[in-house]
Amino acid sequence: MGNEKQINTKRIYDGKILNLRVDEVETSSNVKAIREVIEHKSAVGVLAVTENDSILLVSQFRYAVGADMLEICAGLVEEGESFRQTAERELQEELGFYPEVLEEFSRFYVSPGYCEEMIVLFIAKDLKPSKLEHDEDEMLSTVEIPVSEIPHLLKSGAIIDGKTWAALVWFMGNMAAS
Amino acid sequence: MGNEKQINTKRIYDGKILNLRVDEVETSSNVKAIREVIEHKSAVGVLAVTENDSILLVSQFRYAVGADMLEICAGLVEEGESFRQTAERELQEELGFYPEVLEEFSRFYVSPGYCEEMIVLFIAKDLKPSKLEHDEDEMLSTVEIPVSEIPHLLKSGAIIDGKTWAALVWFMGNMAAS
Repeated sequence: MGNEKQINTKRIYDGKILNLRVDEVETSSNVKAIREVIEHKSAVGVLAVTENDSILLVSQFRYAVGADMLEICAGLVEEGESFRQTAERELQEELGFYPEVLEEFSRFYVSPGYCEEMIVLFIAKDLKPSKLEHDEDEMLSTVEIPVSEIPHLLKSGAIIDGKTWAALVWFMGNMAAS
Repeated sequence: MGNEKQINTKRIYDGKILNLRVDEVETSSNVKAIREVIEHKSAVGVLAVTENDSILLVSQFRYAVGADMLEICAGLVEEGESFRQTAERELQEELGFYPEVLEEFSRFYVSPGYCEEMIVLFIAKDLKPSKLEHDEDEMLSTVEIPVSEIPHLLKSGAIIDGKTWAALVWFMGNMAAS
């Protein structure tokens, strides 16, 4: 499809979890355009499945959208970590388990029109109790949901977080196929 | 789960497709924290299904992530539009069809940790030729993919756009269930 050539770049903001730069580009059809780019770390999401056929979600307040949300366990990849290591750490911090089985099932960009963030999704099984401390400005509670209730949960509109909706739809499709 | 109270807010950038503000908040456990918030319009994504069991995707270069991507038809909600009207307009602009059948199947936040953007997903069927002009700085080409090839496409890792991966996984799960 072509490419876009950077003509100019301006750093607007360097922050805590994101940076913003604004680039001027020339498209492959020689049109000049402005591209606003959010620089953001990659992330992982972990769908945790228990031995008694439940999934573990976290409930947390999301300030940017002003709502409490049910989400799969998730977090940003820290310096020097592999995606797998981030997944193992976040599962211990947010849910208090170490996964004996941890398999990647997808990776995608959350909003490629303006944001660099990629997320890698894992499914975690064979969970062993193991707790790590988490960030003091994160308030989380754990919610356990039987797998049999996921279809209703999806239909009800209660899942309004993208990675969580995608992971649960994948999980149910996978169950149907197996 | 609680709430977070805004103590301070600072506007950093007001742009073309997004704004950035940085707020200081007090969490429900009385901890002060910084919240970086991307203000961004809501969007729609449209999974277009043809009469001969194919889906129509668009291929486009995404500057923020430096890659060509296969995506469902999508775009931002303009002033005064309903989600449905945006879906109808984008389908005509990007793919050249008007949908006689257009059904919402999900809505979610793409990255609620820092971004306001919500996307509403539709499935479009019974497509009638109808073309509207689109933005001159968007370079798109249409890609038609037989439904039978979607499972392979998903497994191959070729779909790296979040809304598209989610929509295709939902579509295949729905096919299996029906």
